[in-house]
Amino acid sequence: MKIQLLGATGSIGLQTLDVVRKDPSRFFVVTMTCYKNIDKLCELIEEFHPKYISVNEEKDALKLIEKYPNIEVGFGTQGLMKAAVYDLEAMVVNAVVGSAGLAPTVEAIKHGLNVALANKETLVIGGEIIKPLLLKHGAKLFPLDSEHSAIFQCLKGEEYKDVHKLIITASGGSFRDYSRAELKNVGVKEALNHPNWTMGSKITIDSATMMNKGFEIIEAHYLFDVPYEQIEPLLHKESIVHSMVEFKDTSVIAHLGLPDMRIPIAYALYYPIRAPFKGESLNLAKIKTLHFEEVDFDRYPLVRLAIEVGMKKGLMPATLNAANEAAVSLFLEGKIGFLKIEELIFECLEHFPQEKDITLDKILNRDKMVKEYLFDRYN
Amino acid sequence: MKIQLLGATGSIGLQTLDVVRKDPSRFFVVTMTCYKNIDKLCELIEEFHPKYISVNEEKDALKLIEKYPNIEVGFGTQGLMKAAVYDLEAMVVNAVVGSAGLAPTVEAIKHGLNVALANKETLVIGGEIIKPLLLKHGAKLFPLDSEHSAIFQCLKGEEYKDVHKLIITASGGSFRDYSRAELKNVGVKEALNHPNWTMGSKITIDSATMMNKGFEIIEAHYLFDVPYEQIEPLLHKESIVHSMVEFKDTSVIAHLGLPDMRIPIAYALYYPIRAPFKGESLNLAKIKTLHFEEVDFDRYPLVRLAIEVGMKKGLMPATLNAANEAAVSLFLEGKIGFLKIEELIFECLEHFPQEKDITLDKILNRDKMVKEYLFDRYN
Repeated sequence: MKIQLLGATGSIGLQTLDVVRKDPSRFFVVTMTCYKNIDKLCELIEEFHPKYISVNEEKDALKLIEKYPNIEVGFGTQGLMKAAVYDLEAMVVNAVVGSAGLAPTVEAIKHGLNVALANKETLVIGGEIIKPLLLKHGAKLFPLDSEHSAIFQCLKGEEYKDVHKLIITASGGSFRDYSRAELKNVGVKEALNHPNWTMGSKITIDSATMMNKGFEIIEAHYLFDVPYEQIEPLLHKESIVHSMVEFKDTSVIAHLGLPDMRIPIAYALYYPIRAPFKGESLNLAKIKTLHFEEVDFDRYPLVRLAIEVGMKKGLMPATLNAANEAAVSLFLEGKIGFLKIEELIFECLEHFPQEKDITLDKILNRDKMVKEYLFDRYN
Repeated sequence: MKIQLLGATGSIGLQTLDVVRKDPSRFFVVTMTCYKNIDKLCELIEEFHPKYISVNEEKDALKLIEKYPNIEVGFGTQGLMKAAVYDLEAMVVNAVVGSAGLAPTVEAIKHGLNVALANKETLVIGGEIIKPLLLKHGAKLFPLDSEHSAIFQCLKGEEYKDVHKLIITASGGSFRDYSRAELKNVGVKEALNHPNWTMGSKITIDSATMMNKGFEIIEAHYLFDVPYEQIEPLLHKESIVHSMVEFKDTSVIAHLGLPDMRIPIAYALYYPIRAPFKGESLNLAKIKTLHFEEVDFDRYPLVRLAIEVGMKKGLMPATLNAANEAAVSLFLEGKIGFLKIEELIFECLEHFPQEKDITLDKILNRDKMVKEYLFDRYN
């Protein structure tokens, strides 16, 4: 199977390549992109020999052209888009971080390519335009998130109409044992210390604010065609139950496993067969106890907000996401405190007007405007 | 759908009728049998209007003939067999308790009828002869046990060859918090006090000795074609996770729900669609904690024994089951102590010879001999 890997040097990109590495006769990496980690990209090029690569900056692209005269090299948005559709027989793995992931997904779908999706923004800000495109071009999305992969697996062989509820588990993130008062003075280092998963810094902060859980509810809504009223978050601090589906006969089917992103990645890449991937087996007798708790929407206001914004559709999700991306970035740079992330998000949703009739350009334009609005204030 | 219900007045029989009662335009009860609870049977006859009924004793049958001149009435083994194959378009629900359930299952399969199976003995003592019959006559078995229904559901849409392990959960029964020393003087009343499930008395004692878990491992081996080495019991005192399947990619799919036998019964009766049955939904946030623990084979020696006996095949499983049936019956009559159940089982397995080449008659004959051997000593 040919793979076009967008965001190769990030956490999901590298774990995708680990799955590829274990089965070299099955997988071929045709294209690879990264943002700016050029050293890592060079390592990967030498191991996987892609035909086309793309990076963010032109100057990096020029260096790569010199270093690898036999490989095609692109840069910027155009390069990323080309990497998505370079070979029309490939599957796209979209592990780009942030709103930059939307356009290449749209491009891939328009060319009828299936996309294994780790980029949350594609569905959070673009779900409304993506759904009709999938139908029109006969392309499929495969979730790479552990939660959505879990639900996708629980639904195997089932009828979607029999679904009563999707239950998305949440670890609660780095600050799950803190009260809201205690969140005032938390720092970047503590925020990046996730209890269960090793992930990129943006998603780790999203996990601490539980913005990610809100995004996952929006994604689940679009991936599985389930109304928001039938999607529930559930605190589960061990991250062993990755998510669940309750059917109309009150049967609940759950996906469990040790936290290892290679399981959902392998599931998507080998679908519909089970991967031969062998990580560490789950031993519940060793883990002994699993805990579950309701998500307190007052403690985690961004979860409720995401559901409300998801229901509003139009440009509101793009506004939410852009405000969050900018605010998290400002927090990581030490320019704002942790609780200010929420504050800026609420502010942007007040400030920017709704627009119901949306297009890819309108989404990307809103994304840019919101980010500028916040960055201009702090830079 | 026409239903032939064997063992109508027992716990599973009555819960099956509760599922039937909720969907009277879908289900028709064609035949009904019971052992000796004639009053209850009369109630059920007047509600469900079967065409044929059968009881154990001829004298009970004669009374019923007089009372219901428009219904055919049978008795004994022949009556039970006839009830299984009375209408060749029906599904058989076999909720008979004990080895008496084997012959009617065999009869149904030989007539190409599908059987929803709550009778454990069918596969425990007859698995070896049942498997080739199913293939020959194109009949199917549907599990009614919560554990096997859970596994059956977890396997929906999956390839059996991708199964790495079946994990069968066990509540631990009435004495799970007792040491073996403390088991010496336990009485019948305490033994019948199961923490999670309301079931018949035989199965409740089997749960306390965990003989039932051993039986379930043998049943799972035959139902799902999985070698004994790949079937594991796991203590889980809440009985919320009904069982699990680990696939070769280390994904674990689990079935969860509140303990309600009508869920697996409805699943089998409506298969392949999900039942509209609406029991109480599982609320994990309310349950808060799920516990898991290894099964200690020294604490529960009958589990290990069942696996060993299952592997030996031939007449050993029939010997094990008959010894257990007789011993549990003697315990319930107050004739032996709780730990004596195990002792008598081990004794019978020593006393009776193995025979590899088996038939239905040989199994039933062994069953009779072992029971007589024990009953003669105490009666």
